[in-house]
Amino acid sequence: MISEKMKPLLQNNSAIREMFEEGKRLAKIYGAENVYDFSLGNPNVPAPPEVDAAIRAILDEEESTFVHGYMSNSGYEDVREAIAQSLNERFQTAFHQGNILMTVGAASGMNVILKTILNPGDQVITFAPYFLEYGNYVRNYDGELVIVPPDTETFQPNLEAFASRIGEKTKAVIINTPNNPTGVVYSDAVLRQMAEILTAKQQELGTDIVLISDEPYRELAYDGVDVPYVTKYYANTVVCYSYSKSLSLPGERIGYLVIPDELADSAEVFAAATIANRVLGCVNAPSLMQRVVMRCLHAKANVAAYDRNRNRLYSALISYGFTCIKPQGAFYLFVKSPEPDEKAFCTVCKKHNILVVPGSSFACPGYVRVSYCVSYEQIERSLPAFEAVAKEYGL
Amino acid sequence: MISEKMKPLLQNNSAIREMFEEGKRLAKIYGAENVYDFSLGNPNVPAPPEVDAAIRAILDEEESTFVHGYMSNSGYEDVREAIAQSLNERFQTAFHQGNILMTVGAASGMNVILKTILNPGDQVITFAPYFLEYGNYVRNYDGELVIVPPDTETFQPNLEAFASRIGEKTKAVIINTPNNPTGVVYSDAVLRQMAEILTAKQQELGTDIVLISDEPYRELAYDGVDVPYVTKYYANTVVCYSYSKSLSLPGERIGYLVIPDELADSAEVFAAATIANRVLGCVNAPSLMQRVVMRCLHAKANVAAYDRNRNRLYSALISYGFTCIKPQGAFYLFVKSPEPDEKAFCTVCKKHNILVVPGSSFACPGYVRVSYCVSYEQIERSLPAFEAVAKEYGL
Repeated sequence: MISEKMKPLLQNNSAIREMFEEGKRLAKIYGAENVYDFSLGNPNVPAPPEVDAAIRAILDEEESTFVHGYMSNSGYEDVREAIAQSLNERFQTAFHQGNILMTVGAASGMNVILKTILNPGDQVITFAPYFLEYGNYVRNYDGELVIVPPDTETFQPNLEAFASRIGEKTKAVIINTPNNPTGVVYSDAVLRQMAEILTAKQQELGTDIVLISDEPYRELAYDGVDVPYVTKYYANTVVCYSYSKSLSLPGERIGYLVIPDELADSAEVFAAATIANRVLGCVNAPSLMQRVVMRCLHAKANVAAYDRNRNRLYSALISYGFTCIKPQGAFYLFVKSPEPDEKAFCTVCKKHNILVVPGSSFACPGYVRVSYCVSYEQIERSLPAFEAVAKEYGL
Repeated sequence: MISEKMKPLLQNNSAIREMFEEGKRLAKIYGAENVYDFSLGNPNVPAPPEVDAAIRAILDEEESTFVHGYMSNSGYEDVREAIAQSLNERFQTAFHQGNILMTVGAASGMNVILKTILNPGDQVITFAPYFLEYGNYVRNYDGELVIVPPDTETFQPNLEAFASRIGEKTKAVIINTPNNPTGVVYSDAVLRQMAEILTAKQQELGTDIVLISDEPYRELAYDGVDVPYVTKYYANTVVCYSYSKSLSLPGERIGYLVIPDELADSAEVFAAATIANRVLGCVNAPSLMQRVVMRCLHAKANVAAYDRNRNRLYSALISYGFTCIKPQGAFYLFVKSPEPDEKAFCTVCKKHNILVVPGSSFACPGYVRVSYCVSYEQIERSLPAFEAVAKEYGL
């Protein structure tokens, strides 16, 4: 029954599902409090109180047929305008509602823009380590994902390797900053160089290359680090945003695309993306949540809680002898495996009831991802287990 | 910038957009109350009070990280089990949560199942008149939509023409009952015959043919007519359901797929559809709304209001001399154009400030769709205009 394209996905899925099942199995044997699951990217911090307050206020103040009804496929005009103005205030941009397309989260936004621009055989470049779903999104439209190997010293993008991979078939580049799984933030200098490379290549090849900035972790940045706004560096940029992490609403599927006026054929791309949003079956982003985010433009999940987790876990792992760059954003540590085969390392961790994700799940073997969007108590409880793992490796 | 596949969509979209713009333009000139817009399928009946009550109760009673958080990509287990049991009670089926996959509305559900089963070149059969988006959904996965011409006497499916179109490439059949745009409901006898044809063809061809039942209008049925549950007729059935009309929540994008145990490779199809839901970018159906529909399984929008509209408008149009079968479901009248070119008829209607959709937008020229999901007052106010149109045609 299953289509040829879905068959490999069905195969690969089992591996991830196995890990979930393993977590449940261990919890049954040892008790949930004695299993240290660092495998998921599911925010443990609740939505800020503004979210539920906004929902109640909307139910009190707005018409049911308006709140729960159809609107333009690109979203409510007032919501889009409010988001545009909020971005303008924060980033000194000049967006208007015609640049903002409300989507069913960033994942759907990415599908929408890829469907809008990709022809079969087009190439999309991204940087390892990366969220493996990018490959699925690109293959949905018969594109090919091209991987730039990681610079494992810094986990900043390897720009030389990047430049060498851009060719006539390159239609888009996906970046993700703050990054899943490394937590690094691309600096002003890096984005400037990346934009220079892209601009030169566009000129050389006579093509348009769209830089797709996947930004679900934008608000999760620490130590006062600046997360530069990518549209300011390069005209052919599209931003995929999500409120999943900033407002802890991952299940609600609410986000937006920014399609700036500066993008080539901007108005046409916006119109086509609106249609793509419709024909992919989303039709529009969930209506109540659109109205909620408009009322929560200044609200934010408790980022300090993630920061506390980050500092505690990072310091402890370093003190036990593990190697890891200190992340400046998102809620992940990308830890070097003490043995070359990180899957074997994951097995050792599991023996100590620690669940982490092998780097090969992000096209970067030799490392593991440790998600710290968990309770501080879980981190505290897990530390002796991490220490025991370190000792087992003689660190 | 735009992909080759999206270009024709961008072209066609302009026609529909023009109609919206035309409505706005007329409203400006004549006042909104003097423009009779029967073009949209946007419920005017508000969500039943149970919906907002459920939202408030959920905010009061359930954990924020649970209500707004990730769950299994197929949806919350308790929601899926409650829906399965509710279907079992109503239709004497034997579903369980493993048959229910929560989706971003029926449109997304349809994309999910088509992505799951279609290979490039596969054919999907549907019956004119039909919702033109079906063609876009099928083409998303490089399938080909095959149209069975209408039986304009009854607008019941033309089963002889149907049987002749089934071949080796036929992977699926889409039906929509109660039907948009005709309002007809497929009877027990029709579904029985359709199932017999499909079963015989499967045997003859040695293939599996999936019957996809698109059911957003299931609860909108009048005169006590029975809307048979399609899975009971044919094993290889998948149901696409939406709460858009039954709970007046079209903007919220909440619905589900029913993938019965009896479907060939059922468990595999369910697993693959769950992945398709994820990789198409929906990830999961909106979480709060999943929990809302679980609490509203016995709630229903005010169907009596649509019924009142139906009776008033149908009787009036018939009395003016228009020809139309009396719909038993949905909220549309499919009226015969008094001249062969129904687009010219639409232009005459527009002269009288009446906006209706040409049947060619449903692959059935010579008819127009009149949506009666509008206020009773709009219907009353519009009647002299319809009468004037009838007189202009000498009816």
